[in-house]
Amino acid sequence: MAQSAAALIIGNEILSGKTQEKNLNFLGQELFALGIALKRAIICPDDIEVIVADLNDLRKNYDWVFTSGGVGPTHDDLTMTAIARAFECRLVRSPEIERLLREHYKSRITDSHLRMADIPEGARLLSNTEMRLPTVAMKNVFIFPGIPELFRLEFQVLRQHLRQTTSFKTSSIFLQADEGEIAALMSEIALQHPEVAIGSYPEWNNPEYRVKVTVDGQGAVAVNQAIQALLNALPADKVVRVED
Amino acid sequence: MAQSAAALIIGNEILSGKTQEKNLNFLGQELFALGIALKRAIICPDDIEVIVADLNDLRKNYDWVFTSGGVGPTHDDLTMTAIARAFECRLVRSPEIERLLREHYKSRITDSHLRMADIPEGARLLSNTEMRLPTVAMKNVFIFPGIPELFRLEFQVLRQHLRQTTSFKTSSIFLQADEGEIAALMSEIALQHPEVAIGSYPEWNNPEYRVKVTVDGQGAVAVNQAIQALLNALPADKVVRVED
Repeated sequence: MAQSAAALIIGNEILSGKTQEKNLNFLGQELFALGIALKRAIICPDDIEVIVADLNDLRKNYDWVFTSGGVGPTHDDLTMTAIARAFECRLVRSPEIERLLREHYKSRITDSHLRMADIPEGARLLSNTEMRLPTVAMKNVFIFPGIPELFRLEFQVLRQHLRQTTSFKTSSIFLQADEGEIAALMSEIALQHPEVAIGSYPEWNNPEYRVKVTVDGQGAVAVNQAIQALLNALPADKVVRVED
Repeated sequence: MAQSAAALIIGNEILSGKTQEKNLNFLGQELFALGIALKRAIICPDDIEVIVADLNDLRKNYDWVFTSGGVGPTHDDLTMTAIARAFECRLVRSPEIERLLREHYKSRITDSHLRMADIPEGARLLSNTEMRLPTVAMKNVFIFPGIPELFRLEFQVLRQHLRQTTSFKTSSIFLQADEGEIAALMSEIALQHPEVAIGSYPEWNNPEYRVKVTVDGQGAVAVNQAIQALLNALPADKVVRVED
């Protein structure tokens, strides 16, 4: 059984459309490669009551929770306070983060900068030799910055913490066919292969293919069997290519 | 008081990172321009129990709900069934949509195609002269296809249904400053101007500015007053430009 994960993306700017959200797709791909199923993502405003309620819901229902955003030095950066409230603990100043901040900002450092060293009591700092900026983890919650470049940098460290022994396999069949023509036979094969997930995704303006059928599962055997069953059933002249 | 909205983005492919989500940013911008506050977005898998629970939660707590995805002809297209279940009504075949589908697919039409004409009993079809493909609305829920091109086409029709008398105003100040240097004075001004929302967004690799401070509100007067208060308080040599 794959481990499950959820994401909580925090920020008014995503909901108002001012900022394009850029971390979810990356997170989904990375977790998929690690064999962890991202099952839910919530985008919520900078509202502490909402963040606390969402955190408590997600951390109890999923193996891992990833937050993105709300960890800067300003008044709308509420994530650490919300995590502390959700876990009913205090915020404490991390000497290690304080030292890194003082090294970085030197004489320009302000009290606002130092707020970024305040973390929930009992939180762990994850880092490695290449990556000095630590990722803060509180029990099963990993706290990431919203800035896409930092999110990706910090995720490097996390990969080694999350790597699983089994991972997902995915294969795709690209077709010059309409979804409606193949829907019935796909349903039938989906019923015969309950151990894999079969999805179909139409393309609107792609000259190469009109629909991509994907098969996801744990372990290559089940995925390959379902792909073969689909290829046997689909009209051969509609198949553009198969991708492993 | 602005009307509120929530989005429910449906699809395993978004969560696994196979597909980049492309409708939320567009929806957020369009609603903002209409004076409607998008307060929450959920990305959920193609799981009927989850979709029904999310729909029931969102439709009761927000003025408008927008769904994206899950309206095609295949076995993993569950949105209409979920809407019917959430509203405790039957799915019925829409003669108008059936006619459009038959005109489009002609002799190639299949039972799977025709599933796309099944809508919750009591749903409304919104269309206009330029747009023949109708948008399906069930009470306060608008049901959109996930394909970005279709989502945008169908939204054209909706705009006239949603246009408000008041709309949001947003202004921005671009700064060559670190967030930490300005955090304390921004907090103070945010407290003095509770009728607007002040946000600050750092840029990582932008040569022009390092942080954008935004002020959002209903009505230009309140927004302009807060912008003026910020400009009075911020170090003038750090201000790159102001955008209305």
